[in-house]
Amino acid sequence: MSKDFTFHLAATDGAARLGEISCPRGRIRTPAFMPVGTAGTVKAMLPQTVREAGADIVLGNTYHLMLRPGAEQVAALGGLHAFMNWEGPVLTDSGGFQVMSLAKLRKITEAGVTFQSHIDGSTHELTPERSIEIQCLLGADIQMVFDECTPFPCEKGEARASMELSMRWAERSKTAFAKKGKGGQGLFGIVQGGIYPDLREASVEALKQIGFEGYAVGGLAVGEGQERMLETLKVTLPRLPEDKPRYLMGVGTPQDLIHCVARGIDMFDCVMPTRSGRHGQAFTWAGRINLRNAGFADDPRPLDAASSCPAARDYSRAYLHHLVKSREYLAPMLLSWANVHFYQELMAAMRAAIGEGRFEAFARETLARLGANGGSSIQG
Amino acid sequence: MSKDFTFHLAATDGAARLGEISCPRGRIRTPAFMPVGTAGTVKAMLPQTVREAGADIVLGNTYHLMLRPGAEQVAALGGLHAFMNWEGPVLTDSGGFQVMSLAKLRKITEAGVTFQSHIDGSTHELTPERSIEIQCLLGADIQMVFDECTPFPCEKGEARASMELSMRWAERSKTAFAKKGKGGQGLFGIVQGGIYPDLREASVEALKQIGFEGYAVGGLAVGEGQERMLETLKVTLPRLPEDKPRYLMGVGTPQDLIHCVARGIDMFDCVMPTRSGRHGQAFTWAGRINLRNAGFADDPRPLDAASSCPAARDYSRAYLHHLVKSREYLAPMLLSWANVHFYQELMAAMRAAIGEGRFEAFARETLARLGANGGSSIQG
Repeated sequence: MSKDFTFHLAATDGAARLGEISCPRGRIRTPAFMPVGTAGTVKAMLPQTVREAGADIVLGNTYHLMLRPGAEQVAALGGLHAFMNWEGPVLTDSGGFQVMSLAKLRKITEAGVTFQSHIDGSTHELTPERSIEIQCLLGADIQMVFDECTPFPCEKGEARASMELSMRWAERSKTAFAKKGKGGQGLFGIVQGGIYPDLREASVEALKQIGFEGYAVGGLAVGEGQERMLETLKVTLPRLPEDKPRYLMGVGTPQDLIHCVARGIDMFDCVMPTRSGRHGQAFTWAGRINLRNAGFADDPRPLDAASSCPAARDYSRAYLHHLVKSREYLAPMLLSWANVHFYQELMAAMRAAIGEGRFEAFARETLARLGANGGSSIQG
Repeated sequence: MSKDFTFHLAATDGAARLGEISCPRGRIRTPAFMPVGTAGTVKAMLPQTVREAGADIVLGNTYHLMLRPGAEQVAALGGLHAFMNWEGPVLTDSGGFQVMSLAKLRKITEAGVTFQSHIDGSTHELTPERSIEIQCLLGADIQMVFDECTPFPCEKGEARASMELSMRWAERSKTAFAKKGKGGQGLFGIVQGGIYPDLREASVEALKQIGFEGYAVGGLAVGEGQERMLETLKVTLPRLPEDKPRYLMGVGTPQDLIHCVARGIDMFDCVMPTRSGRHGQAFTWAGRINLRNAGFADDPRPLDAASSCPAARDYSRAYLHHLVKSREYLAPMLLSWANVHFYQELMAAMRAAIGEGRFEAFARETLARLGANGGSSIQG
């Protein structure tokens, strides 16, 4: 652990990178997958279980926490780490994405966004300054600039205006963070620009000009498809500083993670392992399983007899099927656990493969085991 | 552990009893509280957590499991213990109570009960013979005779006819268990007779005549109130064999447990700790807490800073309030855990007090700490 916020790039294998972020609350082994703890809890999991599954860091959502219980409330209770009983690092998003996807009656101006809460209809404002203030009240170790997320599809003129607004907001976020952020915390910029290579390039240059502790790729995984996503990474990643972590927001399937690590992404977050778990789906090394299927009613096999995860190893598929059909709490509990554990196992296996210079073979074999998901080859 | 089903009465203190049931799957320290695992899961808890909370035995429901996934299905998957990943002893009820409280279009004859499933409306039959067959397919260590549960209030003539039918069914259950039961499993009789002392006496005599490994008191906690319940125990318990365990079905609050242990009950089951946990209520040594109350939004204290239970110790009431308000899975997970752990702590404290000959003082002090719950004194 470090008193400062640092990133050490330990090895590369092709474009894939093995590294470690260090900050006062702990280390984050990269490539990293960050389970999503939207409202101060990784849904249906104890924080200790998340940790034991192998996660170094979890994500919290500024939008949800500012509405309930409120950022000042969390701060008065000792910050988000104490509030949710998670000692390791936490990353918070800026609220920009959720305002676009969840809130009502949004109004965007140069100053920021006003919107109505999806919970009780109350009116709120987010600006770059307020977003950073909230993230500092929460005590996030990694904070994100406030940005506008453009939908897909989006006309180029609109995408350009939105990206340029986000870049001005990024600069204001940096200024706010310089005042409110603590030593050891890091602020990440977010590359925008939709699927337009020249806009992505311009966004990268603007962010590098401002200077951040890490660089996220935003505005993807919003319906553009895996192929366009990978093309966008291809034009974006080579332009980012090598010595800073690269975070692809909101991605993805296990196959997505492999493809994106192959291109140089260091960090991911996604609700997929927990959301799928709540919907009766399990991720395994042999692909995705839908435990609602009647065929599992008689299946005495666990999800993965070789797993070190009790949820994957100690319960039959027949039992999991029964729990899902009976809408028992234990179904999301076990399946979220097994899925988060699987995602962490996958990240650990990728880190090992990069360290040993065999990532390309690992990726090819693993993609074959997992089955198809989108059409890209791993070399894009 | 014993190859046979045995009960050892280690000490008495007034009418309160300290003992141990031993059977091939483990020992059950009495007085014991059995968490309810209705559909093959103690709701919102991992089996390992139930065990670590201090439970020696859990309860499964014949009615629920026969409907879904089916007794033959559970048997094909290795029995209920393997199915739900619980290695310790399991007690199953006979299905009688749930047929009365949940099923539709019941028809009772001398042979048994036909009814429609509350899940899909399909028609099923339960007889003493089928109930025991199901309990044997599940592999229950303690099985219950099939009985009719009379509602409260109930005219004496009806209560008598129902009790007498239950006694004939008890005899048929014993005969069926003699054929299908395994060594080391125990069959318990159930005393019926409503709130009528002479009917309870007659029921006890009928059951003793048949002979069982334990005796349950049924048909209570159905609306008669704590005072009538305790009066019924007063006329029933002294007539039961001293060398067999006594089980009060479906009871109750922490205060109920103390009052009933004081009268000589050895075993309890109740959905209260888990159901209350799902509804935002927590049991503590200072009484019951409703975490929905807005007053807890700012409360940094845990449920019980001195508890050995992480759920009670490591999360603030403010966080629990937030989880309950946000309908997060973690709310029932933590509150069910804390409540089951509290119930087990209470049983352990009662066992220690009986062993040390200070149960009356313990009961008086603890009832004062917990606050009022019904009007009975502990000496009834």
